[in-house]
Amino acid sequence: MQSDMDRIMKERGIDALWVTGPADHNPNMVYYTGLHHLTGADLIKPHGKPPLLFHNAMEREEAAKTGLSTRSLADYSFTKFLEKSNGDVLKAYTLMNAAILKEAGITSGRVAVSGRNDVGSSFAQFSALQKHIPGMEIVGQLQDNVFNLSRLTKNTEEIERIRNVGLLTIEIVGMTAEYLSHLREVNGVLVGKAGSPVTVADVKKMIRLWFAERNLESPEETIFAIGRDAGIPHSAGNPRDVIRTGVPIVFDIFPCEAGGGYFYDFTRTWCFGYAPDEVMKLYKEVHHVYDTIISELKINQPFTDFQNRTCQLFAEMGHATIKEKPELEEGYVHSLGHGVGLAVHEKPFSGMGASALDILKPGVVFTIEPGLYYPSRKMGVRLEDTLYATETGEFEVCANYPLDLVIPLKR
Amino acid sequence: MQSDMDRIMKERGIDALWVTGPADHNPNMVYYTGLHHLTGADLIKPHGKPPLLFHNAMEREEAAKTGLSTRSLADYSFTKFLEKSNGDVLKAYTLMNAAILKEAGITSGRVAVSGRNDVGSSFAQFSALQKHIPGMEIVGQLQDNVFNLSRLTKNTEEIERIRNVGLLTIEIVGMTAEYLSHLREVNGVLVGKAGSPVTVADVKKMIRLWFAERNLESPEETIFAIGRDAGIPHSAGNPRDVIRTGVPIVFDIFPCEAGGGYFYDFTRTWCFGYAPDEVMKLYKEVHHVYDTIISELKINQPFTDFQNRTCQLFAEMGHATIKEKPELEEGYVHSLGHGVGLAVHEKPFSGMGASALDILKPGVVFTIEPGLYYPSRKMGVRLEDTLYATETGEFEVCANYPLDLVIPLKR
Repeated sequence: MQSDMDRIMKERGIDALWVTGPADHNPNMVYYTGLHHLTGADLIKPHGKPPLLFHNAMEREEAAKTGLSTRSLADYSFTKFLEKSNGDVLKAYTLMNAAILKEAGITSGRVAVSGRNDVGSSFAQFSALQKHIPGMEIVGQLQDNVFNLSRLTKNTEEIERIRNVGLLTIEIVGMTAEYLSHLREVNGVLVGKAGSPVTVADVKKMIRLWFAERNLESPEETIFAIGRDAGIPHSAGNPRDVIRTGVPIVFDIFPCEAGGGYFYDFTRTWCFGYAPDEVMKLYKEVHHVYDTIISELKINQPFTDFQNRTCQLFAEMGHATIKEKPELEEGYVHSLGHGVGLAVHEKPFSGMGASALDILKPGVVFTIEPGLYYPSRKMGVRLEDTLYATETGEFEVCANYPLDLVIPLKR
Repeated sequence: MQSDMDRIMKERGIDALWVTGPADHNPNMVYYTGLHHLTGADLIKPHGKPPLLFHNAMEREEAAKTGLSTRSLADYSFTKFLEKSNGDVLKAYTLMNAAILKEAGITSGRVAVSGRNDVGSSFAQFSALQKHIPGMEIVGQLQDNVFNLSRLTKNTEEIERIRNVGLLTIEIVGMTAEYLSHLREVNGVLVGKAGSPVTVADVKKMIRLWFAERNLESPEETIFAIGRDAGIPHSAGNPRDVIRTGVPIVFDIFPCEAGGGYFYDFTRTWCFGYAPDEVMKLYKEVHHVYDTIISELKINQPFTDFQNRTCQLFAEMGHATIKEKPELEEGYVHSLGHGVGLAVHEKPFSGMGASALDILKPGVVFTIEPGLYYPSRKMGVRLEDTLYATETGEFEVCANYPLDLVIPLKR
């Protein structure tokens, strides 16, 4: 969590953080600024000191709302640097970047860079700056970096915000079940008042409205994938598909606070009316693994241990798993879960991208989402909840919702 | 436009494009993929050839929907590269990146990189790859690059999509005016049915619902800024502010197709009931400049010419302008407009960031948005429309809406 940042910076030999980009949909920036209407900014945090926020002159009011120390970029006029550099744009950026780092007290040392921005423009600027200041090393980090190691654990306020998004999420899930289960069935298809079939597009439109009412958004949409699409973990679902009784639907919903704040991640698999035997069998297997893993979770264990355990459980049931074949398309084809925070997928990881530091420590918020996928048999099942680890080493689901497969029709 | 890309690449000495990141909210990726549910991808386009899209195995169906040639990253297993590199993560990325570039036929030459992704991770990867392949130059470009020069002009389909977002935008603007003008006035404050004042937060919530109903979103929110906030161009407005008669409201609305598609940009300044003389005077001045500039627009002229002309017009009226003082806070404090497309602000630019290539060519889509700002006098006025230049060199507003300042109350 944020209070660990200076320690983590010291351990990793980082003298300053430099985060660039907007203050929305930009996790490492939002981590310090909160959600604000800043279209472009630079945040510099020297080790052991609070961050300094550089903002556009026109956005001074929004910048002030962050509560951080701020500087207007009007005082670092690009036009003047462009004059100094005789119109050389890259050189002007270099002079400007050097000036703002200097204002934050950074003239040498290892500077860890981050932020969601155009990677081309940043590559040019960082490369040039590094040549310009020989004593400075621009450090772009991969898996284990000061940002995601700090964000690996959450403080009480962060957990409350995630849980709040979770409560709103399950409210929307309940409304979706309620709406669909009250539809009329005609020849195995759910139809609306006018008698025409309700489509995946219709369901998603309602969900979008419910998000908007709750000041949530879903930058990467919502998965509502039926039959064969349910067998492909990241298929968002076909907008024109109708809802048939007895056909499994993977409903994966992962909104965030509007503007790119804290996320929640949740999946249920539903069959309206009834479930065919082979879908029920798959569901029971996934449910069993879900229960087993949650009962076996242990504080301070590597998350990958539980991915291995999940593969073992599914293999014992006769399913192929990603452990033997990374490019697997049928069976258990993904990893057990991932951290949830200002990104929907973040540390800790349980599969690809995990390191020895992806530990289920107190304060981690993460998903458990076992699933089985058989697109050739037109089915897939996934069950997912977001959990957190308490300070005393217990694991709790953030927002409880029934795991039921079959949603009975109510008329 | 896209059909110019190979010519532009040749002119700029670029042998291949490499765009990284998701296929949503990532303009240079969406430019080729369209809007799809790809959480992470790499698109490589060699000069003179169609692009090749590398995607996660789980997202193969979504990738196929792009209509591009695709390759699954499962065939470039990171795990295997990690074994080859003895666990060195950066080295594994380098080997993987080299392998996918090779698959696209790129083993040397100048590769222009772009995409919205973490700038730190990309900086590490690009720097390492460049060292690994001595004959390859990774080119991160700033203002005038192959991506934004291609996107500078739009084809017929792109203009239609922008216009369509524009028509939905003015529909929402009309609904907002209709709703507010039918409220009751109590002591100069607009109140709802329950008798409590309607706030900026209430208005924004309605607008969010109207966006959701139309499959639009607004990643950077909406500006609804009253009185003093109206005098600060990028103030989003205070959620708790109430709507008072006779107080100017700057209403700047800039949604895009959900998922990060084409944008529209539009501003009106409103006074409900009546406008005080000093606000009306400011409004008439801005309106006059708006009319003058639109009547003087000329095809194939630099956009900056019209920013200079705008400064001249406002200066003649006695206002300070940004031309004399870049850090200006009262008067005409920003630039005349900007291009609109897959980003809400893109080429052509009329102020900072403009180059000799920011020309009003046939196919450009851009805003005209003169404004005057006096936060100390609790007022600001801006009028903005999005226009496009036809093939025959005419300029047309994409979606017409009255410019009126005063919105009469209807009850």
